[in-house]
Formats: sequence, structure tokens, C-alpha cells
Amino acid sequence: MATIKIGDLTVGGRQKVLIAGPCAIESREQLLQIAREVKAQGAHILRGGAYKPRTSPHSFQGLGPQGLFYLKEAAEETGLLTVTEVMEPEELDLICKYTDIVQVGARNMFNYPLLRRIGRTDKAVLLKRSFMATVEEFLLASEYILKEGNHRVMLCERGIRTFDHITRNTLDLASVPLIKKMSGLPVIVDPSHGTGRSDIVIPMTLSALAAGADGIMVEVHPNPKKALSDGLQTLDFPRFKELSEDFSAMAKFLDGLDEQRTHRVSRESNLS
Amino acid sequence: MATIKIGDLTVGGRQKVLIAGPCAIESREQLLQIAREVKAQGAHILRGGAYKPRTSPHSFQGLGPQGLFYLKEAAEETGLLTVTEVMEPEELDLICKYTDIVQVGARNMFNYPLLRRIGRTDKAVLLKRSFMATVEEFLLASEYILKEGNHRVMLCERGIRTFDHITRNTLDLASVPLIKKMSGLPVIVDPSHGTGRSDIVIPMTLSALAAGADGIMVEVHPNPKKALSDGLQTLDFPRFKELSEDFSAMAKFLDGLDEQRTHRVSRESNLS
Amino acid sequence: MATIKIGDLTVGGRQKVLIAGPCAIESREQLLQIAREVKAQGAHILRGGAYKPRTSPHSFQGLGPQGLFYLKEAAEETGLLTVTEVMEPEELDLICKYTDIVQVGARNMFNYPLLRRIGRTDKAVLLKRSFMATVEEFLLASEYILKEGNHRVMLCERGIRTFDHITRNTLDLASVPLIKKMSGLPVIVDPSHGTGRSDIVIPMTLSALAAGADGIMVEVHPNPKKALSDGLQTLDFPRFKELSEDFSAMAKFLDGLDEQRTHRVSRESNLS
Amino acid sequence: MATIKIGDLTVGGRQKVLIAGPCAIESREQLLQIAREVKAQGAHILRGGAYKPRTSPHSFQGLGPQGLFYLKEAAEETGLLTVTEVMEPEELDLICKYTDIVQVGARNMFNYPLLRRIGRTDKAVLLKRSFMATVEEFLLASEYILKEGNHRVMLCERGIRTFDHITRNTLDLASVPLIKKMSGLPVIVDPSHGTGRSDIVIPMTLSALAAGADGIMVEVHPNPKKALSDGLQTLDFPRFKELSEDFSAMAKFLDGLDEQRTHRVSRESNLS
Repeated sequence: MATIKIGDLTVGGRQKVLIAGPCAIESREQLLQIAREVKAQGAHILRGGAYKPRTSPHSFQGLGPQGLFYLKEAAEETGLLTVTEVMEPEELDLICKYTDIVQVGARNMFNYPLLRRIGRTDKAVLLKRSFMATVEEFLLASEYILKEGNHRVMLCERGIRTFDHITRNTLDLASVPLIKKMSGLPVIVDPSHGTGRSDIVIPMTLSALAAGADGIMVEVHPNPKKALSDGLQTLDFPRFKELSEDFSAMAKFLDGLDEQRTHRVSRESNLS
Repeated sequence: MATIKIGDLTVGGRQKVLIAGPCAIESREQLLQIAREVKAQGAHILRGGAYKPRTSPHSFQGLGPQGLFYLKEAAEETGLLTVTEVMEPEELDLICKYTDIVQVGARNMFNYPLLRRIGRTDKAVLLKRSFMATVEEFLLASEYILKEGNHRVMLCERGIRTFDHITRNTLDLASVPLIKKMSGLPVIVDPSHGTGRSDIVIPMTLSALAAGADGIMVEVHPNPKKALSDGLQTLDFPRFKELSEDFSAMAKFLDGLDEQRTHRVSRESNLS
Repeated sequence: MATIKIGDLTVGGRQKVLIAGPCAIESREQLLQIAREVKAQGAHILRGGAYKPRTSPHSFQGLGPQGLFYLKEAAEETGLLTVTEVMEPEELDLICKYTDIVQVGARNMFNYPLLRRIGRTDKAVLLKRSFMATVEEFLLASEYILKEGNHRVMLCERGIRTFDHITRNTLDLASVPLIKKMSGLPVIVDPSHGTGRSDIVIPMTLSALAAGADGIMVEVHPNPKKALSDGLQTLDFPRFKELSEDFSAMAKFLDGLDEQRTHRVSRESNLS
Repeated sequence: MATIKIGDLTVGGRQKVLIAGPCAIESREQLLQIAREVKAQGAHILRGGAYKPRTSPHSFQGLGPQGLFYLKEAAEETGLLTVTEVMEPEELDLICKYTDIVQVGARNMFNYPLLRRIGRTDKAVLLKRSFMATVEEFLLASEYILKEGNHRVMLCERGIRTFDHITRNTLDLASVPLIKKMSGLPVIVDPSHGTGRSDIVIPMTLSALAAGADGIMVEVHPNPKKALSDGLQTLDFPRFKELSEDFSAMAKFLDGLDEQRTHRVSRESNLS
């Protein structure tokens, strides 16, 4: 299994990674407030969208470069790493300059020219699975990046589109062990987009870690009802605190379970 | 949340339930061998199909009543409870006489006359979700049973049909907390049918428990390659042993986590 | 290609068959009024449900045997053939006595015991595709009937379940030429259930015939808004008149096109 | 209903439009040979991919600009209009210079920056539906182009992804009347990608026209087995000849049917 170093953080190893932040960066104050809170609760990476792909051209499309400046400021104040989404090649240089990780959103997983451009940088990448991609297509998309020489790729399961709309997407957690086995790359799970419902983000966080995910990405906002996008799936601060406590407990348990398994195997080897 | 008593076992409470056995009952010897092994590894309930719904009329259709007699014998020898699938009303009396739990398979979730008949018995029921049923339709199907007066219903998530066929079905673990919340009924997860791949049954077992499942149902066979059905998703004995050890560790961890949460809440109440 | 004789009607040959009637039989008057109207517009077969499989146990479940008597009366008065749905083996004898064609609904396509029972009668059968069945599973289900000796089977495409809910189901018209080629059985298309929207039933009727369907089944009601089920997809009388005129024109055109193709082929054979 | 003028051709009016050509432009000779044949059979527009979005980075990726030059040459020789796919903004100027219609492929329907750029040109556009887009998302994507001022947009139904893989995609012909009604834009259907099987492209062509499509786009190659991509769904010349004859007959019939309907309506108005 490959691990990826981003600053002092290692993704894909024993440590489980917690990524949190607002769906969209709405203002300097909003972002700083959230950054401080998620840092206090143990998050490693701050997420926040500056360029937003929206289904309707009439919806809020993000703050653009100004959002990137706020992200940089929040990173410097809190010491958090940062991740943000890129939508077109033109934005790539600026995003690389201001953030630590470039995210390819679900709508752009099949945007091969964009993947190739990212593959020519040395930036860490968070590639989200399209809601219409098979696991095989997802892995082939990652190869567009890897083939150009950039091997710092994390894959993000965020749910697929099915016939049942009680959740926004159907979180496909069986993809986690499959992707890890087939690609060797770290896997992050996004239970916020994967369910679209803040009331089940915590159980699905635990479920994702138990399936073998190397980390979790969730949306957090001081007042989800007033969020400019994705409010229904966004955690408020008290609920994020609960999540981070459960996350830590589960991460610790799983680390112990891995050790027990190693002992079992060596014990059985000694016996035979 | 409702709990269901079956013999000495309580489903839906603190204890996590482990159901295991072959897809189809193939012979007296096969069933007894498996029953002893899964009992030794801590299983509570023995599964085994006597009447098998098969996509093709040319496939093996099960041993019928003879299979039920073997199931009864295995139960008496090992002390395990038993569950088997019913396909039509005519079989119901015999199945009720010889087993502890009646299973409705995914293909019959929409078979309302069958559900009504089962609702008129006092037998514990394991109702599997159709692979194309929404969560809402699943809960409405359970109401066909409840409405007739039988409240001993457990619901089983076993994967839904989606565009990606890398797994046999897409295990919809987000349905677990949703179903529990909406119905109050116990939820069992079947990672064997839910994935169709024995190589990821263990991580998906842990994942299901972490999502809140009250139990797990898996397929076990001494020689999966020779199983008359579902061999690809069936665990052999060594792998089932691994599963049962991980299952127990996770169940214990989650029980402890529940207690910690209770303490957190009461501590916060005292402070405020 | 097999043809099926039902009374004086031949299904699967040059004539395109028009099946029409209410979703559910609601009263003697309702059924007679509809039967007279659809007969006047050229329909060959009257449909009407006496036993209704409903997602919720709290919805109207049909008139039962009384509905069958009304259907028989309507048939005798108008000379129409009749089709109605069977839900469980117990009802089969009565349904065979009172109607010309037994329908297996989408929810029961996987109900193999029911299919076997029908296979032991000599009644014409209309087997609907489950909304979750692949074409291959659909054909295998038909083999459960054929294997028992009943070869008078018509297959009905009625839409499958997909992620887009702008229509109730996604009508899979490519299945029409595939099923005809693979099975040789006549294919009927149900654009009412296949779309769930009366505003596009006419274009989808034409589209289905052009794809090669041997007939069409549609829902008709004097006052769709007051229908006890499926009102949104049901045609009123004026719109059914339009449909029947377009249906006849398209059927005539396609019959002529078949002749032209035969001429083309023989002309080309003569030249070579 | 809006109509779109492209050269001397009007799309969206009484004439049904036939678009044909290879999936990928493979060589000057291949393209010219196909162009001459499809022109002889009555096609209006030549399709051919110069930039190919391929699932794997290891597959043939198209001839690039050289392909565009061949397309221009074929257009000049035969008088056909041309359409080709754009994958990234950088290619747009060149494509606009060398072809008549810019195609946005299914993988790029959610690529909003690309749609915006195209919206700032005055080029005719063929926007393909993503294989996982709802009709509503498809229409909203078209608004990204319309909003920038370019109203020459045709929408292309090319199948959606479902659980059944007997066809490459599930052609959703009910979307045709819905899209026309909701948007007023012309609709083209692609039965080649929509089915992935050359053996049913002809019935699905007729079916699409009967559903109300304004035109058809199909893949043609002198030797489909040797095509560099999409061979299974590609028509050879004799079969394309059959298609064009059936296409013309159906187009003529539907034009006549429209007139009959107009007479019916005016006759009924006179009577009342």
C-alpha cells in the first residue's frame, strides 16, 4: 500500500485522516470560524470550495480567487492543510499556489484533459468518484494522473446514483476494500455527499472507517440552515464534535484490531 | 427500539447476532459439519435453504422438506436457532414446525399474499429487502406482516441493484441507520449477497456493525468451490473463524462506545 | 416467430393488438362504460384489475371475485377478450374460468411457484417484466411457464427502475427487438406504467410499435383524476380516441414497410 | 418549437435529419470513403471524432487536428455538414474553424466551464446527455450554453446507465417528447451508443423517430470489426443503406400523420 506525505501528514498509513470544512467558502469570517473549530476538534485538513460546479447556471458559483486567499489565510493561522476543487485547467496554477491538495470533483472524473494537466504537477490530488462511474472506470481515471508522473493520488468514494432517493447518493462502501486492493492508493470517504443527510453522517463515518477507509471528509458549518449550498448534509459544531470523538475512538480500535490480527497470524504460523 | 426474543436470544438489544450457514442445504453431512463449525465459532443462528428460488428453472431447486428435517436435526444437536426461506404459502406450516425463523427472500418482498400469511403466524420473520426496493417500499412491505398482528419482524439489508457489477449487488449501508430510525425494528445485514465476493465479506461485516446493524448473516461452506450455489460469496471455515473473531471485537468495541456516549451526554447535562 | 391464438385473435402476427381498460375495476358501471368505449375505438382486449398488488397495505386492494364477474359480463356484452392479474395460486382457477388471459404483474415475475402453476394450465399468459429484471432474467422467468408445457406466453415490457424519476419507470424499448429475437415470443408494451404520464403515452405507443412490439396495453378511465389508482398515467376517452387513430395508422404503415422490405430483399436476390 | 439553421439545413422542423459517420476518424481514406457512402444514402451531416475521450489512457485517443483537416476535406468534396466532439476549451477555436457543429460528449455534459465557452460562440451545438443525467440536469446543462447567448443548441439522447447490461446503455426514448415539450429545442437520438449493438440500430432508429425525434445519429464504417473504437455498435454499408431507406419511409409517414392530425383537429373544431 502506498502512503502519501502532505506536509507532516501521512495518508494511507496507520493514522486515519479527518478532512472537514464548509461546502463553499462564503466569507473570510465564515471560513476562519470553521477552521478554528475543526482544528480544535482534531481535523487535519480544511476543505472549502472556491469554484463551485452547480447543476444550474443560476445558482451561487463560488467566490473564485478570493476564496483561495481566505483558504491560505485560514491555513496559516490554524496550521491545517487545505484542499479545494479545480474545475478547469486555467485555475490550476493559482490553486496549486494557494492550497496543499487539488480536488477533482465527481462531475469532472471523466474530464481527461483536466486529469492529464494535474498529472503534470507534483501536487497531492483528491480524485472523487463520479456518481456514475464503475470502480473500474474510477481506477482508469486515476491512471490518467498517474501516467503523467504524479503518484500522489487519493481516491474518494462519495456515493453513486441509484433508484432510491431517500439518500442523495448511495454510499458504496464495498468499493473501499476493493479500491485499496486493486490500486494500492489511499481511500477517503465522503459521507456528507454520500448520504446528503446530516442525521446519518456519524454512523456512516464509523462504517467507512470499519470498511478500511484511510480518512473521512465531511461538511461543517456554524449554521447549516443558512449555508449557501448543501445545508441538509452539513454538520453543525456540536454534531461535528460528536463525530470527531467517535472518529478517534474507532480509529484507535481499528489500529488495535490490526495488531491483534498480526499476532493471530504469527501465532498460527508458530503453531504449524 | 423494539427487541425480539427468539428462544433465549434477544435481537435488537446490546448483543450483536451472528447468523451463518450454507446457501443451500445439500446433504445431512454437509449441514451437520457446518452447524458444528459455526456453533464452535460463536454463531447464534444457523441458516440454510431448503426451498431455493433460482433465476433459471434448470438450476438446483433445493432439497425441499428433507432439508427442513436436516435443519431440525442440526438445531437439536448444536443448540443453534434456525432460519430458512419460504417461497409459497403451502410450505409455511411445515417451515414453521421445523425452524425458528421464517425468511422472506429478496424476490418475494413484493409478494404481498405471502407476507399477509406470515403476518397471521407468531413466527419470528427475517424479511429481506428486494434488490430493487426503496427503503420506503421495504418498510411498507414489513407493514403487510405487522398489520396482521405479527410484530416479530427483523429487516435484512442485502444490497441493491445498480449499474456497477464489480460486486453482485451494492450494499446500501446507509439504509441501516435509516431503517432503524424509521421503523424501530432490528436490522440484519447480509454481506455475502450484498457483495457476492468472499474476499470483502469481513470488512463489510465490520462496516455493517459500525453502521448500527443488530447482526450479520453470512454464507459458510467447507468447500465453497463445490457449493451447489453462491460459491463465490461463501466463506470457508478458516475465513469464517477470522470473521467471528473480528465480529466479536467490533461488537465489544461498539458496546463500549455506546456507554461512552451515554456518559458524554450525562456529563454535558450536568455541566449545563 | 410464434403466434398465439386467443379466440379469433392472433397475437404475434401481422395484426397489432390493442389492450385497454382501467387499472382497477371499480364498479360494474365503470367497467361497462369503459368496455363499450374502448371497443368502439377498436381495442381487442379489455384489461382490468380485480386483485391489486399495492405497495402499501393501507391502499385499495381491488374488488376481488366480484371484479371478475363484471369482467365476464363486459366481455359478453362487447365481444372483447379479457385479461386480469393473478397474485396467488389460490385465485388461479377462478381467474381462468372468468377471463381469457392471465396476467402476471411486475412484482410477481420472480414468483416462481406461481409461474409453475400457470405453466400447468392451458391459458394464454401475459407475463410482465419486473422493474428490476434484466432481459435475461425476464426470459428465464418465462421458461418457468414454458417448461411446464404452456407455450401461450406473451411478454410485456413495462419499464425498468432507474435513477431518473421524471417518468415513473424508464421504458426500455430496445428490449422489444431483443426479446423477440431471443425468445420468438410476442411482445406487448405498456406505455402507461412505462412512463406514468398520460401526456406522453401516445408518442410512446407509436415508438413501441415502431420498435417492433406486437401490441400495446394502456390504461383508460372516463375520469382519470377520480381513478382509484394510477390516475396520472391514465387516458381519458378523447385522448384514447386519438391514440387509437394513431395506433391504426402506424400499424398500417409498418405492415406496408414489412412488405417493402420483402420486395427489396427479393429484388436484390434476383440481381445477384 | 425552435428550429436551427445550419447551412441550408433546418433542424427541428418538418425534415428529419440523418447524421452518420465513423466513431473515430482513423485516416483520410477511411473518412472519405464513409463520407461518400453516407452522402449517397441521403445523410445530411457527417460525424467523426478527432479528439476521443477514452475510459483508459492506454486506448487510441484520436488523430487530433489532423482529423479536423480530413473532416473539412470530406465536407468540401461531398457537401455534407460536419460535427465533431470538443473535449477542452483550447481546442474550441480550431474545431469551430473546421466544422459546422460542435459536439459536447456525454462525459462532458457536466463540464460547465466548457459549456460556458461554447455559449460564447455562435456555433451550432450538439449537446449529448450524460449517461447518468436526469432530464432536468440535461436541460439545466443546456442553459449554461443558452445563458451566454448561443441559442443554436440541439439535445442528443444517447442512453442512460442502468442495471441491465444486455445493451451498452438503456435508450430512454420517453425523454424525447419530454425534452421537446420542456425545452422547445430539437432532439437527436443516437441509437448506436444508446444500444451498443448494431443488430438493433434500425428498429431503434424507427422507434426514435416515432417518439418525435428530429433526427438520428449513427456510426458507420466499411468494416466495423476493424474499427478502432465502438465496432460492435457500428453499421456496415449494406446495413446503413437499409437504415436510410427505412428512415426515409418513416419520416414521410410521420409527416403525413402530422397533417392528418391537423385535419382531425380542424374538423372537430368545425363540428363543435
